[in-house]
Amino acid sequence: MSHAQSKIRVAIVFHSGYGHTAKQAQAVAAGAAAVAGVESQLIPVEGGDTTWEDLEGADAIIFGAPTYMGGPSAQFKAFQDATSNKVMAAGFKWKDKIAAGFSNSGSRSGDKLATLIQIALFAAQHGMHWVNLGLPPANNSSMGSETDLNRLGFFLGAGAQSNIDQGPDVAPPEADLATARHLGERVAQVTRQLVRGKAE
Amino acid sequence: MSHAQSKIRVAIVFHSGYGHTAKQAQAVAAGAAAVAGVESQLIPVEGGDTTWEDLEGADAIIFGAPTYMGGPSAQFKAFQDATSNKVMAAGFKWKDKIAAGFSNSGSRSGDKLATLIQIALFAAQHGMHWVNLGLPPANNSSMGSETDLNRLGFFLGAGAQSNIDQGPDVAPPEADLATARHLGERVAQVTRQLVRGKAE
Amino acid sequence: MSHAQSKIRVAIVFHSGYGHTAKQAQAVAAGAAAVAGVESQLIPVEGGDTTWEDLEGADAIIFGAPTYMGGPSAQFKAFQDATSNKVMAAGFKWKDKIAAGFSNSGSRSGDKLATLIQIALFAAQHGMHWVNLGLPPANNSSMGSETDLNRLGFFLGAGAQSNIDQGPDVAPPEADLATARHLGERVAQVTRQLVRGKAE
Amino acid sequence: MSHAQSKIRVAIVFHSGYGHTAKQAQAVAAGAAAVAGVESQLIPVEGGDTTWEDLEGADAIIFGAPTYMGGPSAQFKAFQDATSNKVMAAGFKWKDKIAAGFSNSGSRSGDKLATLIQIALFAAQHGMHWVNLGLPPANNSSMGSETDLNRLGFFLGAGAQSNIDQGPDVAPPEADLATARHLGERVAQVTRQLVRGKAE
Repeated sequence: MSHAQSKIRVAIVFHSGYGHTAKQAQAVAAGAAAVAGVESQLIPVEGGDTTWEDLEGADAIIFGAPTYMGGPSAQFKAFQDATSNKVMAAGFKWKDKIAAGFSNSGSRSGDKLATLIQIALFAAQHGMHWVNLGLPPANNSSMGSETDLNRLGFFLGAGAQSNIDQGPDVAPPEADLATARHLGERVAQVTRQLVRGKAE
Repeated sequence: MSHAQSKIRVAIVFHSGYGHTAKQAQAVAAGAAAVAGVESQLIPVEGGDTTWEDLEGADAIIFGAPTYMGGPSAQFKAFQDATSNKVMAAGFKWKDKIAAGFSNSGSRSGDKLATLIQIALFAAQHGMHWVNLGLPPANNSSMGSETDLNRLGFFLGAGAQSNIDQGPDVAPPEADLATARHLGERVAQVTRQLVRGKAE
Repeated sequence: MSHAQSKIRVAIVFHSGYGHTAKQAQAVAAGAAAVAGVESQLIPVEGGDTTWEDLEGADAIIFGAPTYMGGPSAQFKAFQDATSNKVMAAGFKWKDKIAAGFSNSGSRSGDKLATLIQIALFAAQHGMHWVNLGLPPANNSSMGSETDLNRLGFFLGAGAQSNIDQGPDVAPPEADLATARHLGERVAQVTRQLVRGKAE
Repeated sequence: MSHAQSKIRVAIVFHSGYGHTAKQAQAVAAGAAAVAGVESQLIPVEGGDTTWEDLEGADAIIFGAPTYMGGPSAQFKAFQDATSNKVMAAGFKWKDKIAAGFSNSGSRSGDKLATLIQIALFAAQHGMHWVNLGLPPANNSSMGSETDLNRLGFFLGAGAQSNIDQGPDVAPPEADLATARHLGERVAQVTRQLVRGKAE
């Protein structure tokens, strides 16, 4: 088996309205790629031609969307809805892959948990295994600060907060990007374990 | 004040992919219109020109969408996202209106609760008051049947189940349409109470 | 009818493990009592003898619990479960009352949204009308701060964040208590409207 | 290493108010034990002395509770809350174990999805990997029936429906017990893969 073929593949599929969620997605991808034997691929939901093949070939898919009005953006939801024909009806092609999720919005809580839950339900409909953030909550004591990993206190996936008057050059802050990198790295590690275990 | 002006107005905004959720929406509208002093208006999310004005003029808005992949359809989500500019940024124009929700999908549970929750969160972001189904669960004993009102056992809003191989001439069944009518009637009654109370 | 009898009654039912949620509950109660014609009553879930009668007599019930492990505390859940016999089986005694909710935990998001959703579903099972926080999100721009009303960005109800190494003399901070007072005041106002509307 | 030591261990922790969820739990356990190299253990949340050690020694923990009033029973929630000290504060002892969930209630939907979501959030707080039901929805066409596997259409975990006037000798029906066995078997298979992959 060639080196290229044996690499663990982690795809990050995302929508970004103004670039902030794209920054978060890039951090997730960088985290995944930092794990030995793993390569990551960023796939915006709007655009690319080979998306469905790339996703079918991935060992893990990490889903990301901004939270708009209490759920993932309509653009991301359109991608999710398209999987009904492209993935499910084509033979549940994502079954038993690893899944994870992340979301960005303007406020600390901002109903981002609702987006993470919706993505987790979506992954469950595809029969994917869900890997969560795996960090304790932070910035939750008098010793904490806004620079803590997981400063927002999410568990099901990674959350990021971007000030609504700042561009993606500044927001989300480094703490949230580091949290996103952690998610990517964790997903890559668990995926490597599972792929090896399946191969036995 | 003229009679027309004094009518309570209930708008039903919905998306329907294949006509089943439209049937449910029509039942909700019929239920609302059956209440004295109330008129209802059906507004599909794709189409009409005067949608935003109609919605601004309504005393209650009932939201309905099919559940696709664990949440409201992308078409309905696009409508929800558009309210960010059209309603919120324009001055929280829906604040203190009444809201309610309904959803249809192919299976009994089918993650419809996730759609109802998402719609309730959306309504909360707009500062609307949520009116639920107000029916006890049914078809939950050996005496129950598929013809019971609320046969599926939802509470936050109205659920309907349409067989995936049947058109909207047949599905959802009468029990679910009666449940939808109940929701429309209940929302109309509560809206009438609240509008009168505000007027004092 | 005497003045006392004609008062609108808002009950605040809550559990507090260490006193922080109790502080939040007191702020909600103060907010409700600040509305003309409204009296509020604090009811801890552990203790009192006349709880069920008081709740039956209330026009609105605001529910509050700390978020422990992704949901309301077990002590609060025991109260919720007891309503199955005491309230539902006794004739859906809370039907058409107003409901609202609040929660406190150690981190910014901290899965408090899950608790608020669970309480909203609980209220829906009782056929109660849900009144949300009604505040825009805050602390979501470079002009924002931790002292903003709704600094955490919740919508369905009021959230509070208490540092885990600080007692209820200090935490949650004033911003969250002001947010809680806002919820109480808003619920009282809507309840007054609805009670007057029903009386016609 | 002895044969006994090398067995994959799946624990099923559950609460059952009237015996129906216990039947579902037994089916989950039977499904897990049917997988070669796997042993399962039933652990009621009320009772046993060695619970925490057993759970610490398990490779996967499947959580089950009846849905009462829109969430897991208070008895199960008390178990969840106890893990804060016994598992988290003791060093996140369940991190990277496999988790899954199931719930029973009287009606078809019955807000069971809310219980499954709450359990998934709980598992995420512990840093556990979530394995879902992995079945397509059923009883969703004119060819379907109440005897279908996954007749209720859940995805995140296994749902069961028990008529409220029938004892656990009759309810939940065989279709729901078969669905529960499927969950147990699936969790055992994925756990075996992951344990082997970790060992490399």
